[in-house]
Amino acid sequence: MSSSIGRLFTVTTWGESHGPAVGVVVDGVPSGLRLDPALLQRDLDRRRPGQSSITTQRSEADQVEILSGLFEGVTTGTPICLLVRNTDAKSRDYDALKDVFRPGHADFTYAAKYGVRDHRGSGRASGRETLGRVAAGAIAKALLATRGVSIVAGTVAVADIEAARRDWDVAETNPVRCPDAEAAVRMIAAIEAARAESDSVGGIVEVVARGVPAGWGDPTMDKLDASLAAALLSIPAIKGVEIGSGFAATRLRGSQSNDAMGVDGFRSNHAGGILGGISTGQDVVARIAVKPASSIARAQDSVNVAGEAVTVKVEGRHDPCICPRVVPVAEAMAALALADAFLRQCALEGARPPSADEG
Amino acid sequence: MSSSIGRLFTVTTWGESHGPAVGVVVDGVPSGLRLDPALLQRDLDRRRPGQSSITTQRSEADQVEILSGLFEGVTTGTPICLLVRNTDAKSRDYDALKDVFRPGHADFTYAAKYGVRDHRGSGRASGRETLGRVAAGAIAKALLATRGVSIVAGTVAVADIEAARRDWDVAETNPVRCPDAEAAVRMIAAIEAARAESDSVGGIVEVVARGVPAGWGDPTMDKLDASLAAALLSIPAIKGVEIGSGFAATRLRGSQSNDAMGVDGFRSNHAGGILGGISTGQDVVARIAVKPASSIARAQDSVNVAGEAVTVKVEGRHDPCICPRVVPVAEAMAALALADAFLRQCALEGARPPSADEG
Amino acid sequence: MSSSIGRLFTVTTWGESHGPAVGVVVDGVPSGLRLDPALLQRDLDRRRPGQSSITTQRSEADQVEILSGLFEGVTTGTPICLLVRNTDAKSRDYDALKDVFRPGHADFTYAAKYGVRDHRGSGRASGRETLGRVAAGAIAKALLATRGVSIVAGTVAVADIEAARRDWDVAETNPVRCPDAEAAVRMIAAIEAARAESDSVGGIVEVVARGVPAGWGDPTMDKLDASLAAALLSIPAIKGVEIGSGFAATRLRGSQSNDAMGVDGFRSNHAGGILGGISTGQDVVARIAVKPASSIARAQDSVNVAGEAVTVKVEGRHDPCICPRVVPVAEAMAALALADAFLRQCALEGARPPSADEG
Amino acid sequence: MSSSIGRLFTVTTWGESHGPAVGVVVDGVPSGLRLDPALLQRDLDRRRPGQSSITTQRSEADQVEILSGLFEGVTTGTPICLLVRNTDAKSRDYDALKDVFRPGHADFTYAAKYGVRDHRGSGRASGRETLGRVAAGAIAKALLATRGVSIVAGTVAVADIEAARRDWDVAETNPVRCPDAEAAVRMIAAIEAARAESDSVGGIVEVVARGVPAGWGDPTMDKLDASLAAALLSIPAIKGVEIGSGFAATRLRGSQSNDAMGVDGFRSNHAGGILGGISTGQDVVARIAVKPASSIARAQDSVNVAGEAVTVKVEGRHDPCICPRVVPVAEAMAALALADAFLRQCALEGARPPSADEG
Repeated sequence: MSSSIGRLFTVTTWGESHGPAVGVVVDGVPSGLRLDPALLQRDLDRRRPGQSSITTQRSEADQVEILSGLFEGVTTGTPICLLVRNTDAKSRDYDALKDVFRPGHADFTYAAKYGVRDHRGSGRASGRETLGRVAAGAIAKALLATRGVSIVAGTVAVADIEAARRDWDVAETNPVRCPDAEAAVRMIAAIEAARAESDSVGGIVEVVARGVPAGWGDPTMDKLDASLAAALLSIPAIKGVEIGSGFAATRLRGSQSNDAMGVDGFRSNHAGGILGGISTGQDVVARIAVKPASSIARAQDSVNVAGEAVTVKVEGRHDPCICPRVVPVAEAMAALALADAFLRQCALEGARPPSADEG
Repeated sequence: MSSSIGRLFTVTTWGESHGPAVGVVVDGVPSGLRLDPALLQRDLDRRRPGQSSITTQRSEADQVEILSGLFEGVTTGTPICLLVRNTDAKSRDYDALKDVFRPGHADFTYAAKYGVRDHRGSGRASGRETLGRVAAGAIAKALLATRGVSIVAGTVAVADIEAARRDWDVAETNPVRCPDAEAAVRMIAAIEAARAESDSVGGIVEVVARGVPAGWGDPTMDKLDASLAAALLSIPAIKGVEIGSGFAATRLRGSQSNDAMGVDGFRSNHAGGILGGISTGQDVVARIAVKPASSIARAQDSVNVAGEAVTVKVEGRHDPCICPRVVPVAEAMAALALADAFLRQCALEGARPPSADEG
Repeated sequence: MSSSIGRLFTVTTWGESHGPAVGVVVDGVPSGLRLDPALLQRDLDRRRPGQSSITTQRSEADQVEILSGLFEGVTTGTPICLLVRNTDAKSRDYDALKDVFRPGHADFTYAAKYGVRDHRGSGRASGRETLGRVAAGAIAKALLATRGVSIVAGTVAVADIEAARRDWDVAETNPVRCPDAEAAVRMIAAIEAARAESDSVGGIVEVVARGVPAGWGDPTMDKLDASLAAALLSIPAIKGVEIGSGFAATRLRGSQSNDAMGVDGFRSNHAGGILGGISTGQDVVARIAVKPASSIARAQDSVNVAGEAVTVKVEGRHDPCICPRVVPVAEAMAALALADAFLRQCALEGARPPSADEG
Repeated sequence: MSSSIGRLFTVTTWGESHGPAVGVVVDGVPSGLRLDPALLQRDLDRRRPGQSSITTQRSEADQVEILSGLFEGVTTGTPICLLVRNTDAKSRDYDALKDVFRPGHADFTYAAKYGVRDHRGSGRASGRETLGRVAAGAIAKALLATRGVSIVAGTVAVADIEAARRDWDVAETNPVRCPDAEAAVRMIAAIEAARAESDSVGGIVEVVARGVPAGWGDPTMDKLDASLAAALLSIPAIKGVEIGSGFAATRLRGSQSNDAMGVDGFRSNHAGGILGGISTGQDVVARIAVKPASSIARAQDSVNVAGEAVTVKVEGRHDPCICPRVVPVAEAMAALALADAFLRQCALEGARPPSADEG
């Protein structure tokens, strides 16, 4: 079950970068949900390589095929298998790296763990695995939308450039997916500068869920923030996650970070919409730290499988900054965590004794 | 299973702050592990209230009782139930807060989720729930120690004061548990200053696991960092987690953040000991953002269960900074995540076909 | 998690026969359920040793203590820990058996699996472990009762004596818990005869859940019958389970075993209330095969831990037929399986898009 | 996760009878296992429709495609997705049954549970779903074979005809897969007789695992027999399961059913290779009750979705006795349960403190 997430809304991805296909099985989707394949494809297209000048030029159509779980466009409650064929895998590109551990990559750790590994295009550790996550996330989003919950995400920092605004409508209009149009221009310049030097940059992606009612999340071990963190940190290249004011909250006083309440509700949202692991009814806000892309066309010291010193240069088609492509994945993973919390809260509320409210 | 964590090394805490007792069931502990009750008690004492001038003065002996799973001091492979009686619960103190939602607390969200709640001392959302975590963590640490894995933690920031050193031997010698003796003095002053103003401060706790071999952690959804993050973020009052260079990595170039390798191993540890969700063999390093304690004896705006505006002042015995007491909890949660990853790796390695290594 | 059952209504038993206590943690109980401790005690008393002439004379008060999860008599949605102290454990009785594998017991397999074992009173493999099951089952029954679901069980066969009737009201009025008063007399005689010969007898226990609505159970792997079977077969000494007509159905024609439907519903119940792993709305009916008690005061051939041939006679206080005491355990396990299916169906129904029924 | 089974060796089937494809994801297969696709295909061919005169004449090639998890013929430790296209689905045949609940089928319960359903060819409740089970089981068998564990199954009863022998080599040589060649002839005659009368018959399938070492299975809730029972009862049309002497044991005395031990091991196997939920090292033996096939071309009373009385005759291509095709599925499900138990025992043994055996 290492490749599965979610207790009731359960998502299992499968597939390697250079195998025949990648995909996902989504189990636990309630019956009766009308699913528009175009919605799935739309998010896959947002994740797709080659969509802009600052992403990898690998060319994949990423056409999703729905293999099960739908009947006449509506979910039946049975598992939904989604499949996308790999068509532009250039495995030859990786022959030179067959016996080498690329710095910052999972080559070494997969070898240490499994003994064998599919070295082509990072195999299972490839960003291509996230395709299944995005497809599953699109289903979760459609489910959440039936309850008025929507999820947006965007790049709010690249290197040391921070977005000063959260104009979410703007995010999808620039290639870096930044909700601050002005900052986006500088971010793109920073990315291009890194690429020109055969290098890469990192950044921060923020994801916001709006319309989440109070009450979702399961203390004490499956808290909403814990589930969100696990979902988001399972995305490749993520090195941190924070909720609400996050690390900045550590420099506040309690009198500042406590969100006061009035008759109209909370007056601030340092908590990021979660208290005690349960949603408060405010926006759920999370940010993730995206490390600079590991694949750089620059000489780096490493070793090979025999333990000998080598110099590695990762040629090929790579993203100089993966933030723009992490954005739809972060939305998807947040959606998965929320969909699971939603189903669990439905179980609790539905099973509560009818007389419970009388007391 | 909301109160359980871990797939093979499974820990379930139970108990409320002002109920008869709190405790934990630890299932999946391998047989044959000699367990010294003094080790459990030692960590419980580190978490105990009233241990120093900067912690709450609630007075609990926190004597742990081992109810099952041991025979002649050795684990039998069956579930271990540990119990600690609550003796100094002063439920009366909470009568005034019965119908009020304390800012920054889980009062509102528990009410929204469950309809009913045990308001006394935060009930299940109390820091007292972490007692079971610490007891379970002590067992996990003992198991990990049989493989040379050790875990340390300490307070590395309070408010805006940062530790400049990681003298782990020093951490337990000052009440703030800071691995920098000089910074500790200033941290304590900052905590006392906040308390003098009926306020509280936050901080950052770092946890380091040493001796973890390469290969632990299960991609793609149960990555070691994802599991660690979920474990750590399930601790009350935590608002963020980062691995290795974490958020700081977002400002590096790939050529900097990629940890180069030489014949003697990695030359840096920006990755925090985890690549692709699998341990690298270096120190596993995580930091968590601890928000300022929510309970402050200062007037704050809030509402009551009827939705009316009220002013709340949380009197009583509270921690002005919970970092020192989070330290043993963070160690425990890291130990639980690692113990689970360890057992899973044992399954993989043990089940690998005998001939696999020949290829 | 080996000691846990249920995905949403999760029950974890702990404790050994001759340890300090046995108990259970029940997680996932919806909030707002009024729990009468007398109901729990009533079922524990039905399972208790020494309740009649045909059960073991070990004398345990089996007073249950509720340690968490209740506030003013109502569940709060947090885990419920229940504890019963062991008081009449006579560990000395087992000294002679310390190094011996009793035939029909789990002595040999526990030693093979764990390397170490608590030999006193079968340790964890003791029937005493079922105490936690019964306590948890009483909570599940109380939850199910809020939806009109009730569960009864009884001994329907002992050795070759079969009950010809299902007068469930009669079952609790005779010591063998048989729903056929006339057969009960003969069953008791058979049990006494076996005991007189230092031997034991087996039998069949039937459990019936009434009022289960159509729709519970989760294909394809967590089918209601599969869950029920796992729950029932996890009871010590059970060697088989059948649903509805069970093994007898293998001798019917399809035209006979198919339950025809009319406008008033099903006309027969060969299916035992389950089709395709989902409840039909009819009575859910299961029967379990209870092997003759393994502990007999008769010389049997076996080996000791050194592999040497020995003769074993299990003296002490044992049940010559465990069926009467299996009855409340079977009810409990069926209740656990149903409660879990109930919660899961609540999740499905609650999460179904509001517009789904319009289509 | 309703469609998943196994905690470490986790199998998730997906797909409907008349959808584009059926398949399975197998997660948790250890790396380094050489997998011969011909082995998978061999078991799929044994399950395939149209293989003999007494099975349905639906014609499916059932060619399996391996989409992930293998590299150069060896497992990599990542999830294995297997896919088989549906090619001979004649959905038109089912138009007449669109609004009708076929007796003995899951039509009614799926409608009650999910509100919507894919009526074509039973949708998800079709025997076709077992294809994924068989494919996954073939992988589990290959894994178990590396430890000398092998699994055989056969039809040991059809209607009232019982096999008197267990010549497992003979089972695959007759179309009913009976390990008693003489009985097979009579079984086939019984099946043909039923079909001639537009009716069907049931039977009993026995599955035997040889070479299972002592120590597999996890008390108290994931006992090997409980896991086996859940796995086997999740197969469509199964109404009962028994281990070892099973229901017959209820008529024995304890002195008979206790398997005595000598220096050469157990002298009998009433326990069916399992004591206390843990394997004994003897053959693990289970039998399952297969009900008569529900689809019969004979007028039966039922109702339609509007609740009106109708007469149903299930025309088309159906099996008059599904036992022969259940055989490979039963082997597969037993293999899955054992593979999971195997991995868990590897975790326990691998994690046991190195010094444990010294004590």
